[in-house]
Amino acid sequence: MAGVRLSAAWLTQPPLPPPYQLSPAAAAASWRRHQDSLCLPRGSFSKIACSTGSSGDSKVTKVLFCGPYFPASTNYTKEYLQSYPFIEVDEVCHEQVPDVIQNNHICIVHNRRIDSDIIAKANQMKIIMQYGVGLEGVDVNAATEHKIKVARIPGSTSGNALSCAELALYLTLAVLRKQKLMDTAVNQMDLGSPIGETIYGKTVLILGFGAIGVEIAKRLKPFGAKILATKRNWSPGSMTCDIDRLVDNKGSPENMYELAAKADIVIICLPQTNETVGIVDNKFISVMKKGSCLVNIGRGRLLDYKAVFAHLELGHLGGLGTDVAWTEPFDPNDPILKFSNVIITPHVAGVTEYSYRTMTKVLVFYMACNNFQ
Amino acid sequence: MAGVRLSAAWLTQPPLPPPYQLSPAAAAASWRRHQDSLCLPRGSFSKIACSTGSSGDSKVTKVLFCGPYFPASTNYTKEYLQSYPFIEVDEVCHEQVPDVIQNNHICIVHNRRIDSDIIAKANQMKIIMQYGVGLEGVDVNAATEHKIKVARIPGSTSGNALSCAELALYLTLAVLRKQKLMDTAVNQMDLGSPIGETIYGKTVLILGFGAIGVEIAKRLKPFGAKILATKRNWSPGSMTCDIDRLVDNKGSPENMYELAAKADIVIICLPQTNETVGIVDNKFISVMKKGSCLVNIGRGRLLDYKAVFAHLELGHLGGLGTDVAWTEPFDPNDPILKFSNVIITPHVAGVTEYSYRTMTKVLVFYMACNNFQ
Repeated sequence: MAGVRLSAAWLTQPPLPPPYQLSPAAAAASWRRHQDSLCLPRGSFSKIACSTGSSGDSKVTKVLFCGPYFPASTNYTKEYLQSYPFIEVDEVCHEQVPDVIQNNHICIVHNRRIDSDIIAKANQMKIIMQYGVGLEGVDVNAATEHKIKVARIPGSTSGNALSCAELALYLTLAVLRKQKLMDTAVNQMDLGSPIGETIYGKTVLILGFGAIGVEIAKRLKPFGAKILATKRNWSPGSMTCDIDRLVDNKGSPENMYELAAKADIVIICLPQTNETVGIVDNKFISVMKKGSCLVNIGRGRLLDYKAVFAHLELGHLGGLGTDVAWTEPFDPNDPILKFSNVIITPHVAGVTEYSYRTMTKVLVFYMACNNFQ
Repeated sequence: MAGVRLSAAWLTQPPLPPPYQLSPAAAAASWRRHQDSLCLPRGSFSKIACSTGSSGDSKVTKVLFCGPYFPASTNYTKEYLQSYPFIEVDEVCHEQVPDVIQNNHICIVHNRRIDSDIIAKANQMKIIMQYGVGLEGVDVNAATEHKIKVARIPGSTSGNALSCAELALYLTLAVLRKQKLMDTAVNQMDLGSPIGETIYGKTVLILGFGAIGVEIAKRLKPFGAKILATKRNWSPGSMTCDIDRLVDNKGSPENMYELAAKADIVIICLPQTNETVGIVDNKFISVMKKGSCLVNIGRGRLLDYKAVFAHLELGHLGGLGTDVAWTEPFDPNDPILKFSNVIITPHVAGVTEYSYRTMTKVLVFYMACNNFQ
């Protein structure tokens, strides 16, 4: 397993001022000195925390996880924090969050709705964090008004982006190979059926060429796919890869219909914002080729449910593979899941040992090195 | 979709002499002249066939497909042959093959057992073909004795190898992401669970680095995997790719235990021969790391069933993803399929639109250009 790299900065909205944020340079330097010790017995890291001033203080930093979903994040954090008596982790069901939020300094949201009513009660809260990316559930304006910082962990350095890219490849292959029909064939003792499609020779549109999109393109290219992508800003400074080698046709969000018309597969990696909700609607799907497929690892509401359903029913849409749903957890009896060419996974794109352990180490280091009382 | 490339030669055991085989140069030249016309109305290809001497002859070439499995191969061949009245395609269940084989000139075997008793009855037979690779079912010695040629379609040029590689990636991802547990999570309305593994950071051993192995390595490398591989002959002339860029550690079959001990994932791409049956046995699996996984896209009997079962039960083997089985079609109630970390697909690795249409075009061209009476 490759070494852990520090996420250079927590992308915050608004940025975290001291003492709640290590400067990227200080964090990176400190991390470089101590990253090896994270693999040693936990006591060795406890000393680091002491030296940064959090220990020797009788006050306790209280961390609230909004459960019960994404259980590994809570479990790993508790495991890594066993030697930190000054940091307590609790997990409650999302419905109970308003009742206990006033006792906590840090809240890990897990895509759950944290609105202004909840935020108003969080009178000790210093920071609301997403364990990963995607802050669409948090009322950032209300948090800012209450002087609560909002943060997420950038995916490009935590392993989240590459984990999501791997699941995007899985879903793409699952749709092209007709996963449900393969299962039926096994159960009916058919052989050499169904006939599938290859990624080879296909044109793939990556809608939203951010950190995840880049990782997807790197993996898709050797399959022999042609890559189209949309991105708001293609300036070289905003990219960490050789774009021209990866992307055959670069477009802006305004070009998305024109590019969608050329694609056999559209992979959606956009964040959910007011501008992107329902972006894959009747108009978008109508311009896609007959038989082309959608893969969604962004957020469920990027897709217009009715439009997707109607085009699946018409046979215009060749398939849908999605890790996210319109409501989560999704009703397993929802009629859209009855289509043999619809495949859903339980919002696990970023949920891997690698990304979760990396994110937990960063999170624990951050909590141990800062004073949240 | 990329253009069709001609398989330069039919790999035959023994080689096909004229008039049953076009020379590779002649076939390639002829194919280059006419490949575009294959996309035109069928009549245009019928003229080519006439000009090569097969038409204008009242005799009919009879082609027998051993059914009922791999249905797309028969259907596509019939579709492409609609304008060739001098070639008749029939399909019978494998059990009926001995009753009708004497009426046919070409037999397409589909991995079915064609033994000396069947071959002895095939008194008009000129060639036995596998629609793809893998001739383990054919008694080649008996065929040779009866002056019947035996052929397969090399995977490197037909799209079979790349199709198999794509399915190998699918199975690898399915095992690492715990496909069955993901389905359970969806049905139980869990979210963000199970926690999966990434290919990133893993060491993968490709057992049998032939055409399929090369295609797998090309696709795995950008995931951040370390590649180990075994191959009998690593001489540069036998490879069509930059081996050193793709493979981190090259071994011979004799090194396989030593390499297996280093791997997190072992992908089996060997042909089934007397030497390879049961090669993945107790000894092999025992040296694999605890929790490591097997992916099999070769043949079912390369794996020792009892050894695999026992190590799944012990928890030593972290998972199995297989496209092939010990008997085919496989009993869907076989206890090995009850393990949540065992995933099976219905022998579809090479069954894609791309490879099947490519192979059918080559097959039809071959049948139309030769005289089998």
